[in-house]
Amino acid sequence: MPMGCAPMGYVLWNEYMNHNPKNPTWFDRDRFVLSAGHGSMLQYALMHLSGYGLSLDDCKQFRQWGSLTPGHPENFITKGIEVTTGPLGQGFCNAVGLALAEAHLAARFNKPDVKPIVDHYTYCIMGDGCNMEGVSNEAASLAGHLGLGKLIVFYDDNKISIDGHTDLSFTENVAARYEALGWHVQKVPEGNTDIDGLRKSIEEAKKVSDKPSFIQVSTLIGYGSPNKANTHGVHGAPLGGDETAATRDELKWEYGEFEIPDSVYKLFGDTQKQGEAKEKEWDQNLAEYTKKYPKEGEDFKQLISGKLPSGWADVLPTFTPEDKGLATRLHSQTMLNALETSLPGFFGGSADLAPSNMTLLKAYGDMAKGQMGEKNIRFGVREFSMAAICNGIALHSSGLIPYCATFFIFTDYARSAIRMAALSHAGVLFVTTHDSIGLGEDGPTHQPIEQLASFRAMPNILMLRPGDGNETAGAYKIAVLNARGAGPSGKVRPSVMAFSRQGMPNLPGSSIDAVAKGGYTVQDSEGKPDAILLATGSELSLAVEAADELNKSGTKTRVVSMPSWELFDEQDQSYQDSVLPPDVIARVSVEAGSTFGWSKYVGQKGKSIGIDSFGASAPAPTLYKEFGITKEAVVSAVKSLV
Amino acid sequence: MPMGCAPMGYVLWNEYMNHNPKNPTWFDRDRFVLSAGHGSMLQYALMHLSGYGLSLDDCKQFRQWGSLTPGHPENFITKGIEVTTGPLGQGFCNAVGLALAEAHLAARFNKPDVKPIVDHYTYCIMGDGCNMEGVSNEAASLAGHLGLGKLIVFYDDNKISIDGHTDLSFTENVAARYEALGWHVQKVPEGNTDIDGLRKSIEEAKKVSDKPSFIQVSTLIGYGSPNKANTHGVHGAPLGGDETAATRDELKWEYGEFEIPDSVYKLFGDTQKQGEAKEKEWDQNLAEYTKKYPKEGEDFKQLISGKLPSGWADVLPTFTPEDKGLATRLHSQTMLNALETSLPGFFGGSADLAPSNMTLLKAYGDMAKGQMGEKNIRFGVREFSMAAICNGIALHSSGLIPYCATFFIFTDYARSAIRMAALSHAGVLFVTTHDSIGLGEDGPTHQPIEQLASFRAMPNILMLRPGDGNETAGAYKIAVLNARGAGPSGKVRPSVMAFSRQGMPNLPGSSIDAVAKGGYTVQDSEGKPDAILLATGSELSLAVEAADELNKSGTKTRVVSMPSWELFDEQDQSYQDSVLPPDVIARVSVEAGSTFGWSKYVGQKGKSIGIDSFGASAPAPTLYKEFGITKEAVVSAVKSLV
Repeated sequence: MPMGCAPMGYVLWNEYMNHNPKNPTWFDRDRFVLSAGHGSMLQYALMHLSGYGLSLDDCKQFRQWGSLTPGHPENFITKGIEVTTGPLGQGFCNAVGLALAEAHLAARFNKPDVKPIVDHYTYCIMGDGCNMEGVSNEAASLAGHLGLGKLIVFYDDNKISIDGHTDLSFTENVAARYEALGWHVQKVPEGNTDIDGLRKSIEEAKKVSDKPSFIQVSTLIGYGSPNKANTHGVHGAPLGGDETAATRDELKWEYGEFEIPDSVYKLFGDTQKQGEAKEKEWDQNLAEYTKKYPKEGEDFKQLISGKLPSGWADVLPTFTPEDKGLATRLHSQTMLNALETSLPGFFGGSADLAPSNMTLLKAYGDMAKGQMGEKNIRFGVREFSMAAICNGIALHSSGLIPYCATFFIFTDYARSAIRMAALSHAGVLFVTTHDSIGLGEDGPTHQPIEQLASFRAMPNILMLRPGDGNETAGAYKIAVLNARGAGPSGKVRPSVMAFSRQGMPNLPGSSIDAVAKGGYTVQDSEGKPDAILLATGSELSLAVEAADELNKSGTKTRVVSMPSWELFDEQDQSYQDSVLPPDVIARVSVEAGSTFGWSKYVGQKGKSIGIDSFGASAPAPTLYKEFGITKEAVVSAVKSLV
Repeated sequence: MPMGCAPMGYVLWNEYMNHNPKNPTWFDRDRFVLSAGHGSMLQYALMHLSGYGLSLDDCKQFRQWGSLTPGHPENFITKGIEVTTGPLGQGFCNAVGLALAEAHLAARFNKPDVKPIVDHYTYCIMGDGCNMEGVSNEAASLAGHLGLGKLIVFYDDNKISIDGHTDLSFTENVAARYEALGWHVQKVPEGNTDIDGLRKSIEEAKKVSDKPSFIQVSTLIGYGSPNKANTHGVHGAPLGGDETAATRDELKWEYGEFEIPDSVYKLFGDTQKQGEAKEKEWDQNLAEYTKKYPKEGEDFKQLISGKLPSGWADVLPTFTPEDKGLATRLHSQTMLNALETSLPGFFGGSADLAPSNMTLLKAYGDMAKGQMGEKNIRFGVREFSMAAICNGIALHSSGLIPYCATFFIFTDYARSAIRMAALSHAGVLFVTTHDSIGLGEDGPTHQPIEQLASFRAMPNILMLRPGDGNETAGAYKIAVLNARGAGPSGKVRPSVMAFSRQGMPNLPGSSIDAVAKGGYTVQDSEGKPDAILLATGSELSLAVEAADELNKSGTKTRVVSMPSWELFDEQDQSYQDSVLPPDVIARVSVEAGSTFGWSKYVGQKGKSIGIDSFGASAPAPTLYKEFGITKEAVVSAVKSLV
């Protein structure tokens, strides 16, 4: 792939991309995404030549422990890599997200009478595999709908995948599909040699400002290798010594291994100079902008600094038991609309469930072609690409904090992208509602069971399930802090928040700050507890009711709220022991989901009340009763232990 | 949706579909899939009218506990429902699977000189949501590639989704996209009234035998409702009393609630008679076929009986320590090729990773247009639809046992479909390889961490991770038994099997039968153990090595292999206690994945060696060392406990 795509890589990086290798984080750089991430060496080579500080020695350490050149491009390892790619189709979606971020900021900040301060292209190289993945079709459909004119995608059409020739499974008319999706489509039939054709295609693509551009470039995989080009033998394995020698002969390349002629470095040296000049020019533009529009200029600088404005969390409301008990999805709506006022980078949307997820920002309209400055993104029924697009938005590194929403169950559609958020430090807020059998009549296809456990097991992500208004506010506070790496751990990580369809009371013992500890005593017994109830979300008030009854009947019972296991596990041992005293072994957890994992807290002698089968279609109160998630069951479980 | 789609439902069910409501499991029935599963009442109404034994009382119990009419169609609840739908896009993929199963069996069994014994259509109704989901594009691309001519899909183009008008997010040219995917495309612009147009479209579709058919039917959602039709107000909520009355007026429908005129029942009564006649005719065809082709006829009957042929598992080989240690993905290849010889319904493929997953059936070629009888399905890079298509194949209820393969990490792409397999009792074998950091250089985007835990938490599915050749054979035996509901539990459930890239030795204590117990003592200490090591897969031999060292140094250590937690938990308590004696509390688990959940077996005082962060790009041995999954770490953990 690096051999087949070398010409487009060269033309892009050396002739068309505005970037400053000396400052890979320059805000207005053109973004580049290698969606076919297995071709990472193409990008490493280009970065080495362009002067990104990646040495030849780094390149020699390809795919080795601790190197800057891992098997796939990883933004958290190598400066200048925008996003982490490899899982096919998703890099393309990230590119859509980057282009969307640019269009959004351009619409919000650029002014007709000064030079634009937000004005860059997003380039992407995708392969056959990316185009077979459904997630890329979703994102392409949305990009076409929004008319993201500054997104330019090269399709490396080499007709080879791991199985062999794409005729085995992929015979659709890809170009016609992109046309149907509303893209500007071009073809470059001789992608290995027709450098001018590549140049022309980029220029044509730039002329079309109301459609994203798809350039189908026919290439030979392993171009130059006389015996292995155009075979899947070059897909996942090196050429080997003999074939490498034969390839050098074929390409008339007279230099040794890792030997790069000065002429090449010189060629790329100009890129560096141009990049520095471009950034300087932009600095001047921004200065002029700020002079003419001081307020907007300062807002813009604050935004792209990536720092949270001081006092941003003060807008989060608190609740007392006198406040009406609501579904946490309604509290979530309150928090979203509050945070939008204090966080200029905060925006997002839902995968066609806005009226159910309660995610609309009331002060704004819908993002659409010609109104890209609006803040409600209508993702359509496209959960997977929604998440991957948000990863791109978050990694635009412009201070944007995207949220995206669906039913909790449909995180299963988006799971790989949510994992990529966790892996690549994309500070996205995954807002999910209808978080248990509490959703009722839609039945088991729509009722999450194992999803809480499955995210708790995922590295570098927070699974938050708040139990009332204060905890919802606390969850958002934690999620935003972690999205920006501003929490106590310093980690940049996304959060999955699970909200209920059904209402629940506001508890006297809950607070915003308590959520930050992950687990805390929300209601204590008088004196040392005989038993501890652990609960989350909609089962928290049920635990409190059970504890009230137990306390009345003489069993001193503490209720521990556990909105985030990850945060609780990060507290020091003495805090953990103060919440869960090791000598109180009568412990019962209650959560309307899989009991998987709870043994960690309740111990082998404790009990877990939950659901380890699929749900069913019926009204929520019936389901709670039939599945045994009741006050009576909790009381009885505690009594069996003390 | 039931109102907007009533005409197409009526035409299909009453005029075109060959089905025998008195025997919903008649093999050669036309299959029907309501991919827009939220419109379930359309199907319930049609089933009631057609005489499927669904009473008016059943319809009145819509979405109530224990009813036959849950919120979404569920094949395991309601006789006559083929597959479970609701999660959008997947029903369409199931339909592709059903059509693929038909085409495969037709190619294998039909003979030119007798009437066909496999000859039915698959009909599907899909909505806007289904078409926005990327998974449907994947399956449509494959269906077009394979030329599934007997698949006929109605697209209920009502332009309304939950968010509102599809103009908000979905403005692509859907018909042109399907044309690009190789489908035969028609439009019926007046789908609410043009019954003849619907009839004609079906007849035209049947004439095209080398392409699947896509019929875009423009409808009004809530057709007939004077004030709510064509709004998202009718999408997820009932009309209400007043509007229902207004709708009756508008449609000139003079009958009461749940009152159906006899004329309607009479009309559908003919369907029943025709259905019975059709089945009888097929019985005769099969009899004639069997007369002329006795061997094939018996094979066919055996296959569609769904029963496993006697002695089928005898083909599974066993291994001794003298046999060369191999990667379990290579053992898996052996099992797949062995089972193909004894199970006539066994076939499948990989999502473009056949040479890595080692899943090719060597005796067969690739399934393709014109060679649908072959047994290697080339799914392309389409994990999600691959899984959903296999669900359709399994639920064709013709004795087919499909397997499908990808890297373990990319089960994240397919997760919702794998869950649907578990929920809907689709006996699919999910074959996954490269099951840990042991895959090495591809790095963290490709290295599973939390996937084992995430499937262990999922209901009604077996997560199997075998540790050598015998355990691989045992895993396949269990997986096939469960796919057919022939295991001790009687449950029909799919399995996810995780195989290694790297080699491991064959252990003396492993066996096929032991795997059936989920966990067992693979190597015991002399006398009562001081400590127990628990391990799975590639870490099993590492645990054995550590135990050898511990036993030598005086710490009596037992090694327990845990290839399936689910099966172990299903054993009686005395067996469980015999493997994990409650008084042996020095327990250490070792598994190259998340430690999440292991506390259940090692207890709060035990230790778990695993990886709770993401992996890295480096050679596998380096990764094991750097992440501390070593014999030394295991020995040291045990010593700290005893």
